Amino acid sequence: MERLLEELTFQDGLVPAVIADERGTVLVLCYVDREALRKTLETGQVHVFRRSRGRVMLKGQTSGHTQQVREVRVDCEGNSLLFVVAQEVAACHMGYYSCYFRRYDAEADALAVCEERVFDPGAVYGQ
Amino acid sequence: MERLLEELTFQDGLVPAVIADERGTVLVLCYVDREALRKTLETGQVHVFRRSRGRVMLKGQTSGHTQQVREVRVDCEGNSLLFVVAQEVAACHMGYYSCYFRRYDAEADALAVCEERVFDPGAVYGQ
Repeated sequence: MERLLEELTFQDGLVPAVIADERGTVLVLCYVDREALRKTLETGQVHVFRRSRGRVMLKGQTSGHTQQVREVRVDCEGNSLLFVVAQEVAACHMGYYSCYFRRYDAEADALAVCEERVFDPGAVYGQ
Repeated sequence: MERLLEELTFQDGLVPAVIADERGTVLVLCYVDREALRKTLETGQVHVFRRSRGRVMLKGQTSGHTQQVREVRVDCEGNSLLFVVAQEVAACHMGYYSCYFRRYDAEADALAVCEERVFDPGAVYGQ
């Protein structure tokens, strides 16, 4: 993956990766370090650097809601990645297919849930 | 936009914003500060904080390739935004509709351009 690393600018060791499915639904924004990127390429499953835990994890490790990589794209400036994936079940730990399940209504200054829940987080992660 | 600001976690004053069109093409990853977000909501056109210039700019200011905001989504943790937009001409300053116009081929360890150029950067920005 030398050519890819050469192209990317890591900031504090990380590069942001937009993750979308093949139909064009944006699922989540994650971060990868070199190790997460290597594991993603080697296994074909998205691995991320979880900043809250300070370590590399398979996306969907606990839930089984993994992401199979279909395409890896690089932006024009090498500042971010786009992973096009096949998503198992759902990307969001709150039970929604996409993490962007809330829409902002500027007129009402309110956030509204605009997607259906596809799984019960309590059942998947325990309470 | 109080409710939105309350929801968002700014890091060093910025929040990343994934920008995609209504068909689901991911165009670019940008950053907004509070001012860029306010201008985006007030005008309905994406404004970004350009880190390389240290200031807020209308996306497409030089080229005229602006982005009309159709939806503003917030992720589950308030760490990023998704702007769904109608894109004028193209999002990328290198002449491509999307900034993610290069695909990584892991087997060949090579980057390949996988989109058609839609405008000539020399003609639009000058050389």
